[in-house]
Amino acid sequence: MSTAQPPRFDEAALAQFEQLVAWRRDVRRFKPDAVDPALIDRLLALACLSPSVGNAQPWRFVKVESPERRAAIRANFVASNAEALQDYHGERARLYAGLKLSGLDVAPVQIAVFCDGQTTAGYGLGRRTMPETMQYSVVAAIQTLWLAARLLGLGVGWVSIIDPAALKASLDVPDSWSLIAHLCIGYPVEESDQPELVRYGWQAREDWAGLVMVR
Amino acid sequence: MSTAQPPRFDEAALAQFEQLVAWRRDVRRFKPDAVDPALIDRLLALACLSPSVGNAQPWRFVKVESPERRAAIRANFVASNAEALQDYHGERARLYAGLKLSGLDVAPVQIAVFCDGQTTAGYGLGRRTMPETMQYSVVAAIQTLWLAARLLGLGVGWVSIIDPAALKASLDVPDSWSLIAHLCIGYPVEESDQPELVRYGWQAREDWAGLVMVR
Repeated sequence: MSTAQPPRFDEAALAQFEQLVAWRRDVRRFKPDAVDPALIDRLLALACLSPSVGNAQPWRFVKVESPERRAAIRANFVASNAEALQDYHGERARLYAGLKLSGLDVAPVQIAVFCDGQTTAGYGLGRRTMPETMQYSVVAAIQTLWLAARLLGLGVGWVSIIDPAALKASLDVPDSWSLIAHLCIGYPVEESDQPELVRYGWQAREDWAGLVMVR
Repeated sequence: MSTAQPPRFDEAALAQFEQLVAWRRDVRRFKPDAVDPALIDRLLALACLSPSVGNAQPWRFVKVESPERRAAIRANFVASNAEALQDYHGERARLYAGLKLSGLDVAPVQIAVFCDGQTTAGYGLGRRTMPETMQYSVVAAIQTLWLAARLLGLGVGWVSIIDPAALKASLDVPDSWSLIAHLCIGYPVEESDQPELVRYGWQAREDWAGLVMVR
């Protein structure tokens, strides 16, 4: 057990965190500049301190480095994105086609993140009635990584326009793993406190107070 | 569009974030002290700046204040926890029975967090092949709130030992909403950089490097 003293955070620390959250973006436009692998490992180590149901720690990270596997994943995205475009018509289709929805073409780092649904860690605690909390634990780790990356000046993009079964097959991972996210990481071309989907007119921000009720 | 200047974060900011992540806990032992409602609203507003698929912002927060509804949710937990105990035997059952797995008895603030799977926001972007990214977006918001709460000295506990359909019925929310988490919030009795499930011998921390592979 640790004997370290609990940290005390002041108003400045909270204000800095609010800035961090405001300037975290889903990045799709990356510089090709390499990222120091030690920074990536620092992010992964930190992500693994995230909450998980029963302390099951079901997150599994796959650094995708092989050019052949990267090409397969990019082709997966291109096909999935072309199919998605068919769902839109008129002005929406034009808008959709103009969006850049992944950084797979340039991002120097790619990490596929899985959930190991069969891990014995945690002994099943907390997931009897809500087994999906295993997947949710992995998402918490991704959000931790995302915020820490922004502190390092790194951008992260979550690619979800992808066939998860095909991506899993591309990476030859254990059967019990399910894909949660495919992440692109690198230095961003631009910084903003507004989501790209806001700036390009796809979907505005909601008023947060309208998303809260009292019971 | 914002014309604000992007923030520059230094090594001290990253070190502070690492401390924050290390000292964030799933809290089940709360002081009864009231929490300023303005702090809760500050957390909710910040959580709503989290990433969401297609910028769908599907998070919905329900502040549970009615004593009757709180009693129903606590009874839901007690019954679900008693059922869960039946899954364990011998030393594990003894350990499980000794764990405190929710702060519903004392926490001054309770917030049920839902995903609105039917929102038209986001126009379906990004969720054709992985519709579960709607739920994942809500989890990202919860992790943001959790970290910000710790900066304020507040503890958050995620209760998942609960029948989600019964909880939803207790709160009389729209049909299209699904429960992601029931959160207890308040000032914690103790602080630690080690999860309670580690300290009480339920599940140790994994070595993060063993959860990473290269492909």
